[in-house]
Amino acid sequence: MKKRMVVALGHRALGTTLPEQQKAVKKTAPVLAELVEEGWQLAICHSNAPQVGMIHTAMNEFGKAHPAYTVAPMSVCSAMSQGYIGYDLQNAMRTELLKKGISKTTSTILTQVLVDPYDEAFYHPVKVIGRYMTAEEADAEEQKGNYVIEEPGKGFRRIVAAPRPKDIIEIDAIRALLDADQVVIAAGGGGIPVMAQGFNLKGASAIIEKDYVSGKLAEMVNADLLLILTNEPHLNLYYNTDHPEPIREITAEQAEQYIAENQFAKASKLPKVQASVDFVRSGSGKRAIITDLDHAKDALDGKEGTIITG
Amino acid sequence: MKKRMVVALGHRALGTTLPEQQKAVKKTAPVLAELVEEGWQLAICHSNAPQVGMIHTAMNEFGKAHPAYTVAPMSVCSAMSQGYIGYDLQNAMRTELLKKGISKTTSTILTQVLVDPYDEAFYHPVKVIGRYMTAEEADAEEQKGNYVIEEPGKGFRRIVAAPRPKDIIEIDAIRALLDADQVVIAAGGGGIPVMAQGFNLKGASAIIEKDYVSGKLAEMVNADLLLILTNEPHLNLYYNTDHPEPIREITAEQAEQYIAENQFAKASKLPKVQASVDFVRSGSGKRAIITDLDHAKDALDGKEGTIITG
Repeated sequence: MKKRMVVALGHRALGTTLPEQQKAVKKTAPVLAELVEEGWQLAICHSNAPQVGMIHTAMNEFGKAHPAYTVAPMSVCSAMSQGYIGYDLQNAMRTELLKKGISKTTSTILTQVLVDPYDEAFYHPVKVIGRYMTAEEADAEEQKGNYVIEEPGKGFRRIVAAPRPKDIIEIDAIRALLDADQVVIAAGGGGIPVMAQGFNLKGASAIIEKDYVSGKLAEMVNADLLLILTNEPHLNLYYNTDHPEPIREITAEQAEQYIAENQFAKASKLPKVQASVDFVRSGSGKRAIITDLDHAKDALDGKEGTIITG
Repeated sequence: MKKRMVVALGHRALGTTLPEQQKAVKKTAPVLAELVEEGWQLAICHSNAPQVGMIHTAMNEFGKAHPAYTVAPMSVCSAMSQGYIGYDLQNAMRTELLKKGISKTTSTILTQVLVDPYDEAFYHPVKVIGRYMTAEEADAEEQKGNYVIEEPGKGFRRIVAAPRPKDIIEIDAIRALLDADQVVIAAGGGGIPVMAQGFNLKGASAIIEKDYVSGKLAEMVNADLLLILTNEPHLNLYYNTDHPEPIREITAEQAEQYIAENQFAKASKLPKVQASVDFVRSGSGKRAIITDLDHAKDALDGKEGTIITG
């Protein structure tokens, strides 16, 4: 039986503008194609912050100026960003696999992720989205029930909640594609956040951290490995001090101790470590690796990366 | 073995603006869910003309005004429109299936469709896209190699080619989902048109007629039935005269004779009939039905619709 991996790609693997994205996926895809060549079944999850921000701004500025069209809520923009990114990513994967003589299909599944309307994250929105607004525009947003923060000297920006993923709505489709030994791009940007209302799903004004969704996805497809690609070869203790110490192979228990010591930055490293801990505890023999693209191969061989086991 | 159907949804099944779309899919999904309940395996293809036009205009107007971002070519906008439409459509399907106690996954596959760069359609672009432009803007478009037509008294608009579909790049993913007895939305808007350049795919400035793609998809997933939903219960001979004659059950040969007699409008009915003819000839026992949403059920029972057999 083939080994199965979920890879989480961060901002560096994708860039911001379209030319940057097209260039970035050309660097990312060869590494992922090599994993496929080595026999891994691959589900790819990715972030979407700059892309969804651009789409949200474009659609809403346009919608305001052209009343015949409607503004597009975050959930719709998130769906669009999965198409925007998946298109380049699945093509880059196709090209790199074909170069290796592998005619395996890589496809993108439009993915919704269920969040809990009572998640306390909704009371403490943290994710900044969209452009800077004037005080008047910020007022109008607040009157619509949206949260806004002021960045002194720069203006106001909208902020949304970052609730935890509870379920992946299209998980059966993702599983069917992995079972067919295909490569699948899923839950892009952390998935389209939705809440259940009876038989309906309703888009939520939220952004789900892609690291948490990657961990959830890895658990739900019964993956052997969660590979989180970030901007450093491994994590460090005492980061941003004059005596950083590399973290190489640790247990979930050790990782939790480091979390308790506040060793990891809340908005960047912490979700990666917490998602890894949750995943390796979801079954026996599971492993999570946090490293960068250039060291992915070495990390799989145990020579680099922060490796977390159960 | 279950019977397999490709359904092609036209503009009426989806609306234009977001609220229209959300309302339209609530009418469309119950009919499709009933087909699933009756045991059909379903692949759904849909048009995207108003949606992709809106996205293209929004992204490009915004891109021009904000040089930090890049304008988005038609192929990228087409990918985004698959997310924009698929999100509402897969949710409406989920709701209607759950109401029937069916917990089958409906998912959207981001789909690229291969076109031939030597397709003569590229020399005769016919599909109008985007907003009206001034003469100066039209000049600028032409200097970029794009085609433009003048609509007297209204301004200039960009036109793109409508080449025939040659291959569906993600066909293996679509097949895997149908084989897993799931509902799949694929090749939305006729698919993202791409051309092959070695191992790479390059987005084409084109729109592929969704009826032709639906027929191609039906052929490639070995469907039993191609159901094309349009705005009339059946086709007519001598349409727009004082003596129209309903077309009910015909062979591909008869359909071809009517095509030769120019019985069908080039931009609307003709692609539906031609796609049907091509499909029913792709294997034995295949059937194509052209009808509207309200008569889909009756047409399947042979009581309505234009039915084309091999």
